[in-house]
Amino acid sequence: MTDRRSGPTIAAIAGELGLSVPTVSKVLNGRADVAPATRDRVEAALEKHQYRRRRPAAAPAGTGLIDLVFHRLGSAWSMEIIRGVEAAAAESQTSVILSELGGVHRPPARWLDTTIARPPLGVLLVAANLSEGQHQQLDRRGIPYVVIDTDGEPPADVASVGSDNWNGGLAATRHLLALGHRRIAMITGPWDMLCSRARVDGFRSAHEEAGAAVDPTLVRSGNFYVEAGFQHGLELLSLPDRPTAVFAGSDMQALGLLRAAHQLGLRVPEDLSVVGYDDLPLASWVGPPLTTVRQPLREMGAAATEILLDMARGRSPKVRRLNLSTELVVRESTAAPA
Amino acid sequence: MTDRRSGPTIAAIAGELGLSVPTVSKVLNGRADVAPATRDRVEAALEKHQYRRRRPAAAPAGTGLIDLVFHRLGSAWSMEIIRGVEAAAAESQTSVILSELGGVHRPPARWLDTTIARPPLGVLLVAANLSEGQHQQLDRRGIPYVVIDTDGEPPADVASVGSDNWNGGLAATRHLLALGHRRIAMITGPWDMLCSRARVDGFRSAHEEAGAAVDPTLVRSGNFYVEAGFQHGLELLSLPDRPTAVFAGSDMQALGLLRAAHQLGLRVPEDLSVVGYDDLPLASWVGPPLTTVRQPLREMGAAATEILLDMARGRSPKVRRLNLSTELVVRESTAAPA
Repeated sequence: MTDRRSGPTIAAIAGELGLSVPTVSKVLNGRADVAPATRDRVEAALEKHQYRRRRPAAAPAGTGLIDLVFHRLGSAWSMEIIRGVEAAAAESQTSVILSELGGVHRPPARWLDTTIARPPLGVLLVAANLSEGQHQQLDRRGIPYVVIDTDGEPPADVASVGSDNWNGGLAATRHLLALGHRRIAMITGPWDMLCSRARVDGFRSAHEEAGAAVDPTLVRSGNFYVEAGFQHGLELLSLPDRPTAVFAGSDMQALGLLRAAHQLGLRVPEDLSVVGYDDLPLASWVGPPLTTVRQPLREMGAAATEILLDMARGRSPKVRRLNLSTELVVRESTAAPA
Repeated sequence: MTDRRSGPTIAAIAGELGLSVPTVSKVLNGRADVAPATRDRVEAALEKHQYRRRRPAAAPAGTGLIDLVFHRLGSAWSMEIIRGVEAAAAESQTSVILSELGGVHRPPARWLDTTIARPPLGVLLVAANLSEGQHQQLDRRGIPYVVIDTDGEPPADVASVGSDNWNGGLAATRHLLALGHRRIAMITGPWDMLCSRARVDGFRSAHEEAGAAVDPTLVRSGNFYVEAGFQHGLELLSLPDRPTAVFAGSDMQALGLLRAAHQLGLRVPEDLSVVGYDDLPLASWVGPPLTTVRQPLREMGAAATEILLDMARGRSPKVRRLNLSTELVVRESTAAPA
């Protein structure tokens, strides 16, 4: 790393604090052998002076690393993102460090220390985000980051890549309405994720457009996993006035829903239409093959990687906010209501 | 890295070759700025003297990296291995660099150069292996490696973790024979992978034990993906004397087989019994939930990581060859023949 900015140098900051230059350097490089109180003083001074370290324009080929951090690893969904990131990183002779946060949406302090000590060319966060303080700590060290499919609304200066969730919700619901369904249930993703709310809004807009009413008791929120689809499916399909169609938050949820329908003796699509979300590779192989909303997950991973590598090379990315379009894929799990 | 061996030093090797010490060091560290002919001479001299660099006993916490290299990324199968490796690595404050070889079973030269230049604490290879020369190049630099689910038979000094494929084949076939099936087909994995051959041998032994004959026209070899199950399924199930049961090489293959059966109007398990392999998380969610042979994929990933980290710390692993046991899981895709 080289220091090429015009503000105060490390030496000036060390002088101001009455510390040695190596001590300030150690904090910048994430070394553990500095007393916590000293670290805090150095971080505060760096922030006060808006100190920003710049990275060299190009790392030697093959030695660059990027951190790919998942809120949780585990489904075919994460595998699609990984494949997109791997492919784009390999094109730039960059390697990918994969890690997961064990289900939390905000990296713990230890994660940040390890990252700063490494340091990577940049960080990709999937369905997770940094606190403002963490963001500044990376920023000061010239480590860019990009958020993929953010859990909430990232600050304006954070680059992000997602997909058009509102349109996805709209397209899925329009399809079901056009088939003649009027009692349509929806199982969303977690309610604190913006993507879930955008899809519900698309769902509502499609109803409004068609002059149809949304029954709020048919809108349920769960996580994106198969068990949530199964549990909500059992509940929704046991209602006295059960829905004739369900729009699921993910293909995995839809798979759980298919099991719930089977268990209750309902045939898909004759007795129940099901729309998934994501278009994972298995969507066309389950029984029946799923009508679903395709999210271009590999393309999202690749686009985020390209933006990140641009930033790591000191170039401003052409776009900081990218939402790739979604597309309805009609297969065999939807039909007109009986 | 420190040089703590008793043979010739780098200086002695440099002297013998009439090269500078930095030049020999550069080759050892995988630096690109050495002429290919010089590199070859240095490698040959290192080999002649059986030069082995030793790594420090412990890397600083959080800075260690291991390379996890897949022959091909893409299925839920690889995700299970990744999760096992991630969990075991995280316990040792080690990060995981993930890469794939794009479908070949032997890493290309460029992969080795990048790895040596990094270098990681060690390398995990999944369904891939190194050439003897590549093995020696890692060995000389004190970079251990472990093979997970090897494609062939690794040399005796290579550590490996797999599962008991022969027993898996035996258990699946015994189950089908006990249900009364006598025309049992098998779709294996690629024929050049030892695991495929071990399972076929288990399949044959179960037949012998039961005094039943194997019809060799019913044994097909494919890859582990869903399309192979679909294609072989269509062929096998269209035979005039079609099998009443199929033992698939993977759950993904079994999923393709279920689609083929559905397309031909055959009900599972009434008209056709299907046994999968792996017990991926989705196996219990497809329709019908799959009877399958469970491979402990996460445990395999974790065990391989622990062996690797032991080797990286200069300790001899307790076991160099580990085959975890497989287990038949009976669900709803198998029944007595009609």
